[in-house]
Amino acid sequence: MAKHTRQDLLERGVGMLLRHGYHDLGLAALLEAGDIPKGSFYHHFASKEDFALQAIDLYMVEVHAGLDHFLGDTSLPPLRRVRRFFEATIEKYRGEGYLGCLLGGLGQELSGVSEVFRRKVEQCFGEIALRLGSCLDEAVRVGELPKGTDTHRLAELLVDAWEGAALRTRLCRDARPLREMLDFWLRGADARPPAAKARRRTPNKRA
Amino acid sequence: MAKHTRQDLLERGVGMLLRHGYHDLGLAALLEAGDIPKGSFYHHFASKEDFALQAIDLYMVEVHAGLDHFLGDTSLPPLRRVRRFFEATIEKYRGEGYLGCLLGGLGQELSGVSEVFRRKVEQCFGEIALRLGSCLDEAVRVGELPKGTDTHRLAELLVDAWEGAALRTRLCRDARPLREMLDFWLRGADARPPAAKARRRTPNKRA
Repeated sequence: MAKHTRQDLLERGVGMLLRHGYHDLGLAALLEAGDIPKGSFYHHFASKEDFALQAIDLYMVEVHAGLDHFLGDTSLPPLRRVRRFFEATIEKYRGEGYLGCLLGGLGQELSGVSEVFRRKVEQCFGEIALRLGSCLDEAVRVGELPKGTDTHRLAELLVDAWEGAALRTRLCRDARPLREMLDFWLRGADARPPAAKARRRTPNKRA
Repeated sequence: MAKHTRQDLLERGVGMLLRHGYHDLGLAALLEAGDIPKGSFYHHFASKEDFALQAIDLYMVEVHAGLDHFLGDTSLPPLRRVRRFFEATIEKYRGEGYLGCLLGGLGQELSGVSEVFRRKVEQCFGEIALRLGSCLDEAVRVGELPKGTDTHRLAELLVDAWEGAALRTRLCRDARPLREMLDFWLRGADARPPAAKARRRTPNKRA
């Protein structure tokens, strides 16, 4: 029961933090929505900060599950897996009314005033980039990306570009910025001439 | 004197909003810093929201002045002007301790709960993209970008990618994400094979 209350509060918290951000999130509203007494909140969480940090952890569980699912699908070429992960993320955003990414929201709002949140969000982005980078290493191994590609940098660029598009989707409430950014990144990831990319994909069809 | 107080409050406000965001910005702290009575604040601004919207306007005056200065420098090729505008923006961020962009900060924090701020920040990004897009049109005319380039989309992508990198710079307090994103965008903007780009630049040196 106690575990249920904690989980319930965190799940509700993720949704409310996504819409309201940190400072505009009222604990009273959070508790009222679940008919939970204030004492129960402080039984589970040391403070509002502690609560928000645990909400980020819950959010990251879902992100990592998505990365496991899509990047681990070895039936598809690595870059196709990356595309599918982000396409699924667009679907998730759509279901939430295009509110963007919790990490970007809290990172922007809090990193000017809180070292704890600044480090936390930076660490989360680093973890996501690390996993994307491993998939890009596979893309290099199978020839989808040129040898010598700086996959770490390319993965960091993808995370950052995505977050910018996620902010824009929050502003215009539309998936367009996300789709266009994903296409732009995928085109730019392989800087080889189109002929070399074509040779890679269809080795027997060209001289 | 009244004008001085208003301008002084707005200038201080831009800096404080950049660090604190909207909800964490205390009017008491803002007024104390300038030794200004509360009544004076409400003489100049209808509300905190009105104040923040006017602070965005002041921020945009500076952005437009930068766009005028760098994009209007016809002694340089258009893409070089775009690069110089963003390099100057990096210098501005550096001087502020890498706190990123006020538009991105307030856009993230407030667009889930305020239609006024959501529309305002979207409009500001649209204006910036429009001006960059005109410079990209010039880049097409002089052959720096291929004919048929969707300059509007490319300018929007640049704004969005930049904002993602600006968030990351706020998190890691370093210019690296901004420089790498600018390079990535400039490489990706011209999707032609390297040989075609080289021919464009040095028409007499290659067959």
